[in-house]
Amino acid sequence: MEFTRSVPVEHNQVTLDLIKDRIRNIPDYPKPGIQFKDITTVLKEKVFFSFILDRLGALYRDKKITKVVAVEARGFIFGGALAAALGAGFVPIRKPGKLPAGKNRVDYKLEYGEDAIEIHKDARTPGDVVLLHDDLLATGGTSKAAVRLIEITAPVQIFLNFIVELDFLHGRENIGNYAITSLIHY
Amino acid sequence: MEFTRSVPVEHNQVTLDLIKDRIRNIPDYPKPGIQFKDITTVLKEKVFFSFILDRLGALYRDKKITKVVAVEARGFIFGGALAAALGAGFVPIRKPGKLPAGKNRVDYKLEYGEDAIEIHKDARTPGDVVLLHDDLLATGGTSKAAVRLIEITAPVQIFLNFIVELDFLHGRENIGNYAITSLIHY
Repeated sequence: MEFTRSVPVEHNQVTLDLIKDRIRNIPDYPKPGIQFKDITTVLKEKVFFSFILDRLGALYRDKKITKVVAVEARGFIFGGALAAALGAGFVPIRKPGKLPAGKNRVDYKLEYGEDAIEIHKDARTPGDVVLLHDDLLATGGTSKAAVRLIEITAPVQIFLNFIVELDFLHGRENIGNYAITSLIHY
Repeated sequence: MEFTRSVPVEHNQVTLDLIKDRIRNIPDYPKPGIQFKDITTVLKEKVFFSFILDRLGALYRDKKITKVVAVEARGFIFGGALAAALGAGFVPIRKPGKLPAGKNRVDYKLEYGEDAIEIHKDARTPGDVVLLHDDLLATGGTSKAAVRLIEITAPVQIFLNFIVELDFLHGRENIGNYAITSLIHY
């Protein structure tokens, strides 16, 4: 049985540097050469979870967000919490075959092969201001496809937010001219 | 382009019956004979999202929950929001191959075939009081497996919560002797 490295941390001692230090690096996962950033070590600590949500919420509190759109599956974790914190609705973007009603679909290329994501057509309300949230911005392929899905419904504005951004992959240049924030940078 | 059926609803007008009425029924999905309950029609409305979260939070505010454990993917939506609302940490249960570090695994039977779910071994903190959340309680197969995963880490107590419960499938009898709540019953 493994136990948490449980040095108690109080909420007023938390910093983004401390959270970055607690994010687990998994070398060569899921493929050789990739350093996977595992945030589950942070999510499980209540002081870190609430700190991250507070920081995310503060970034968008004055933006009049009406919908938080999040990409399955890890994007849902803070996506739902952000919707609650901002008084917005929540809309899931999912892999093909997961949404049961009428939907729009965008296909996109991965490093190896292709993938696709979908959104319900009726997820739209006219006048929406959308916050697209995901946990990680890497090459930006999925996020760019998600933006294209959201653009179909012609919202007033689209903001993008991530917990972690891998700056050296230049994902935000791939996404285009949108306002993007990330809490933690590598 | 489809639009939301957007009769404005104020927070003080929301009831569980109204939410139940707005949940979309998808006949014969994903298989013939199954009436799929699609809650995305509710999640996208901010007044419904916050109403559901308030109701869920109220059920567990005095239970001293230390970890909200949620099952991928739809369970993450309110799972993260509940962790924030209750001041708890968040722990994901995922399909095989999704969690990158040391993990426990439980295999279980489905109506057709088998499936498995996993949890990180280090998700545990001694003394945990766990709230297992998922969006739907149907036959209880996945939830029973999730309880077995959580039991491995010997928490002080396990509570279970769902948004929707299909009473006619008797899932809670399958799960065993745990305190289970569901907001909406069919």
